[in-house]
Amino acid sequence: MYDLIIIGMGPGGFEATLTALRKKLNIAIVEKSKVGGNCLNRACIPTKYFWTGAHQIEKLNVLDNYGIEIQNVSINFKKAWEGKEKAISFLRKSLNMLLKTKKVPVYKGRGRIIGQNEVEVIKEDGSKEVIKGENILIATGSIPVSVGNIIPDGNFVITTEDLLERTDSLPEEIIIVGGGVAGCELGYILSAYGSKVHIVELMDRLLPMPDIPEEVSRYLLRKFKKMKINTYFKTTLESYEIKDNRVFAKLSDGTQLTADKILLSIGRKPNTDIDTIGIQKDERGFIKVNKKMQTNFKNIYACGDVVNSPMLAYIASYEAKIAVDNITGKDVEADYSVIPYVLFSGFEIATVGLNEKQAKEKGIEVVTGYYPYTYNEKAVDEHESEGFVRLVFEKESKKIIGGTIVGTGASELIHIIQMAVKEEYTAEDIHNFIYFHPSLSEIFIYATYDIVAGKLF
Amino acid sequence: MYDLIIIGMGPGGFEATLTALRKKLNIAIVEKSKVGGNCLNRACIPTKYFWTGAHQIEKLNVLDNYGIEIQNVSINFKKAWEGKEKAISFLRKSLNMLLKTKKVPVYKGRGRIIGQNEVEVIKEDGSKEVIKGENILIATGSIPVSVGNIIPDGNFVITTEDLLERTDSLPEEIIIVGGGVAGCELGYILSAYGSKVHIVELMDRLLPMPDIPEEVSRYLLRKFKKMKINTYFKTTLESYEIKDNRVFAKLSDGTQLTADKILLSIGRKPNTDIDTIGIQKDERGFIKVNKKMQTNFKNIYACGDVVNSPMLAYIASYEAKIAVDNITGKDVEADYSVIPYVLFSGFEIATVGLNEKQAKEKGIEVVTGYYPYTYNEKAVDEHESEGFVRLVFEKESKKIIGGTIVGTGASELIHIIQMAVKEEYTAEDIHNFIYFHPSLSEIFIYATYDIVAGKLF
Repeated sequence: MYDLIIIGMGPGGFEATLTALRKKLNIAIVEKSKVGGNCLNRACIPTKYFWTGAHQIEKLNVLDNYGIEIQNVSINFKKAWEGKEKAISFLRKSLNMLLKTKKVPVYKGRGRIIGQNEVEVIKEDGSKEVIKGENILIATGSIPVSVGNIIPDGNFVITTEDLLERTDSLPEEIIIVGGGVAGCELGYILSAYGSKVHIVELMDRLLPMPDIPEEVSRYLLRKFKKMKINTYFKTTLESYEIKDNRVFAKLSDGTQLTADKILLSIGRKPNTDIDTIGIQKDERGFIKVNKKMQTNFKNIYACGDVVNSPMLAYIASYEAKIAVDNITGKDVEADYSVIPYVLFSGFEIATVGLNEKQAKEKGIEVVTGYYPYTYNEKAVDEHESEGFVRLVFEKESKKIIGGTIVGTGASELIHIIQMAVKEEYTAEDIHNFIYFHPSLSEIFIYATYDIVAGKLF
Repeated sequence: MYDLIIIGMGPGGFEATLTALRKKLNIAIVEKSKVGGNCLNRACIPTKYFWTGAHQIEKLNVLDNYGIEIQNVSINFKKAWEGKEKAISFLRKSLNMLLKTKKVPVYKGRGRIIGQNEVEVIKEDGSKEVIKGENILIATGSIPVSVGNIIPDGNFVITTEDLLERTDSLPEEIIIVGGGVAGCELGYILSAYGSKVHIVELMDRLLPMPDIPEEVSRYLLRKFKKMKINTYFKTTLESYEIKDNRVFAKLSDGTQLTADKILLSIGRKPNTDIDTIGIQKDERGFIKVNKKMQTNFKNIYACGDVVNSPMLAYIASYEAKIAVDNITGKDVEADYSVIPYVLFSGFEIATVGLNEKQAKEKGIEVVTGYYPYTYNEKAVDEHESEGFVRLVFEKESKKIIGGTIVGTGASELIHIIQMAVKEEYTAEDIHNFIYFHPSLSEIFIYATYDIVAGKLF
């Protein structure tokens, strides 16, 4: 009997492994595919790899300003693909090496919980094996959602996973259904590498989630327009047909498009077909857990995309640690109060806490501080002057309750604001904090200046 | 009578201006040279500009991994120089524009305090004008130090200011005297752009300051060796002569070198020849101030390199705000307890709080957490795997007391650790903080893992 069986080796499963090994648990792993899960193999990590390339492509025309004169640039997506494969395989090997060194048994196959302590592993050849565990952690992640009339075929109609794991040549023209995070990230990347991109979005803006302020959607849209990415709002893909190796699509506004592929990026759903013992799910199909990440069976835990918390790799990791801590007798609960949201599209975009609109909806009166990257010395030194920060403060106390950063470094800088929100810093605390000069972080001094010392104009 | 006369328009003077204008003070400025001071015109900002270029040059060979195929790269320092001038002049113009818009009188000349409320402005043509102010802020900065036998001539023997403001062609070969911050920053840049660089350092390591741990010096030295930068430790420049437009130098260890130039980078001293009324200075020549930045004359304040606090642009700005706050009746004191130190050389290098050695010297028992960039997914995605973090915790309480980061992003990430030190976070607080994935910030999770959950090996 193992101390802990972990089903799924994505960010949740792997973090659980790391913590469990340190706590000397005797563990076993069940994984049907590659270690690293979606995040490493077909989502976050390949996306950020290609984003780095896309951003570099964009920045080629500033190299001259640093005396770097280049001629004859050509963009070869296939090579970028190979580079991505190399990076991911390095990371995957390091995970596998750890499992091997620590002699962790990895059962290759689909895991199904058939008893409170029993996991059946269904292998590729159809054979089955049952293993037993004191505790079980379900970390089986999620799969892409499809909509009624759009059926992914892995070739003409593809999911984000098809694109990132199996599409090693660049589509000349692509229709992206869904202008959310994945749509905006992949649309930017494909466009930078040379695809003609169309984004079709049901709502009236890019990134139409409550956590993304409308000014961010507008800012990104301006850039997409400059890049000649076509956007269609309040629009759906009504129908399509495949003829002569091409997709002919009709949008709800009457527009007719042709493309090499349709990319579906409208969301994900939990992968919860994992038991026969009645583990409880909510009405949307997520596994029900308490704050200790326990299911209705007290020795069976779940974390990550299968539970009803933000579907983010780092939330899976966080929850995995909570689960293992509880398994090892440390009584802790998950706290989702201050979570950063980040994406990499035409810019790095990061938010934390409440934005202006969300605060107003909660009846909180606010003042905000804004500063553009334009005059930040480091941004100027780096030719990275696109972007801005907006910080949101409770009007009376001037305590920070949230912030949005758009621009280079946003994905790291957001943690400073996150910590400030957590510690209930006032505008003055943030303003008088000593930041290195020249740093991007100094935008926080200037975004709080009006509030702390009065307006300049 | 002005409310406030600011002498010197560097980072201190400019920050004072920004704050004073917001507080509706009637101010005047005295500046003998360009607005922006050393920082903008001949130190921080040009250095970071060239650093961006140097780093890009270094990274040219990874572009291929992103499918960016370039042929025929040539490096043209003159163009980088022009780019630098453009960036700086943009920033300088924006400062001038603000002063103009706000109708701030700028007296062009050297300021000398000749009465408790009187500043004499000595103009370039020798004419003088006296202006009067209720308060005076001395923000006249610092000038490069020279040593006995090495006399800067602006051509063969130059200061860092000569290099950054007036040397628009790349020296083929250069001897840098001093392996501190400026020596390591400029040595890296010049080498990346194609100079043959020799660094001569009196002490036994690069960056021989207490705030820089020895492991950082060693790490940087390894990179310098790879770049074929020559280093000479426990060595001084004994003598030199100039013949046929070349420098022939003899080091104290007997080594003979020839070069185009000698660069002096052994430090700076306060520029305090600014009064006739007996403003008190300490034995090292710094103006004496209390924590409100007041000199022995209660209406005369001083900030930045002229006072005995760390000679850093952002400390000048910080102190300037303290001074203006006190002038406008807000009783505040400078607090230097948690200051980030950052430099840009072969890597970004950043430290805050106490390192292991400093802690031991204070009798504090510590445990440390270490993590290399090697396995950080974002660093891998960006081909930025060089670097590491070391966090220092008080042994008993596991509270963080300091940290060092070497590698990409260090200059921004350090503020997260700085805030953690300020808030007395424990290793567990840092470990369980929710960082975006993939981000560089996640190194903090892994640098605290051993302490929080036990060792993996």
